[in-house]
Amino acid sequence: MKYEVTDLTKVRRRPERAIYDRDLVHSILDEALVAHIGFVDDAGVPRVIPTAFSRIGEDVVIHGSTRNLLMTTLAKGGRACITVTLIDSLVAGRSGFGCSMDYRSVVIYSSAEVVPDSEKPDCLERIVQDIFPGHRIRDHRENELKATLVLRFPIREVSAKVRDAGCLDVEDDYASDRWAGRFPVSLEIGPAENCPRLGPEVVIPEIAAGLPSRKK
Amino acid sequence: MKYEVTDLTKVRRRPERAIYDRDLVHSILDEALVAHIGFVDDAGVPRVIPTAFSRIGEDVVIHGSTRNLLMTTLAKGGRACITVTLIDSLVAGRSGFGCSMDYRSVVIYSSAEVVPDSEKPDCLERIVQDIFPGHRIRDHRENELKATLVLRFPIREVSAKVRDAGCLDVEDDYASDRWAGRFPVSLEIGPAENCPRLGPEVVIPEIAAGLPSRKK
Repeated sequence: MKYEVTDLTKVRRRPERAIYDRDLVHSILDEALVAHIGFVDDAGVPRVIPTAFSRIGEDVVIHGSTRNLLMTTLAKGGRACITVTLIDSLVAGRSGFGCSMDYRSVVIYSSAEVVPDSEKPDCLERIVQDIFPGHRIRDHRENELKATLVLRFPIREVSAKVRDAGCLDVEDDYASDRWAGRFPVSLEIGPAENCPRLGPEVVIPEIAAGLPSRKK
Repeated sequence: MKYEVTDLTKVRRRPERAIYDRDLVHSILDEALVAHIGFVDDAGVPRVIPTAFSRIGEDVVIHGSTRNLLMTTLAKGGRACITVTLIDSLVAGRSGFGCSMDYRSVVIYSSAEVVPDSEKPDCLERIVQDIFPGHRIRDHRENELKATLVLRFPIREVSAKVRDAGCLDVEDDYASDRWAGRFPVSLEIGPAENCPRLGPEVVIPEIAAGLPSRKK
């Protein structure tokens, strides 16, 4: 299954790296911990805010305070650009041009829909389970839910870009005496440090030993 | 030394996390591998593009193809928002509200100055040395330099935001039987895999065994 290419998502630079495959887009979104969301504020200034997010089906879902500029601006329905980037390696080439990175990125153009109050608890639970599978939290309180905006952005206009080439030098550079190589980069999530104020009845859950890999 | 707080950089949400300290801003920029740069395109659409960057003194410097939309749009002097984010931990709290992340981020509002041809080689060398200290590349070729735009963004309007709190729950949650903890997150850069096409005269450099830590 592929996403439709639109004028906005057509990759002009290095189109050979552009991918519109749904499974690939999903896998990049699911592995990432933060998205960088761009919007234009009321004064016309571009702003980019990092934020935790989850993919739920064909939506990117974020949540935040009802007093947060990103949330309140986007709740009005303005355009957003949601960018997610995973760095896979640093490539030291034989020339400046040959120095690069292997990466996987996704860019989504979308506008927010405000998640109605009735769906908020379910949505927030899915966000928690996305990051901490199996983690049990207490029920939300009414005042907490009221203070929280949940926004969903339908994934329709989207492109992924992937570089997975390692060293890629100008042909006549390969015979030279310059060294080249790639340094693998990965995001490591260690085992949990317990909260120093755990209650006496607490059972340490399985995930404390280590979260399951986000790379599927 | 502190950066001046402006209307754009005044952090309104959780101002206790806002920091304008120059050394802290520099340390976050220097540790990060990519920035997410936001700009408004000619049609008024916000766009966010991930890109490698270096801090050189009080400038953020990026480079790219003269055919790249990000580069050509920003070269015209339009406003940019440069955001850099480091995730330090995932925090599993006792409530949805208590689930969070420890992070360090920097947001810069700036406009590009085009680096003149005469300064390009020095600038590009500093970018290479920033990522691969000690790495020796061959001289740039005239056509390569011509195809490369180098932009610098003065760091003047800038704020950093830091959460380093670990578990932070509502006071009466601490006594409950729910578990809470923080999972440390780090970006690991492994030792290099040599390019499979190394020339016969190549001496493997010291950095191949591992790049020095970007965390100063």
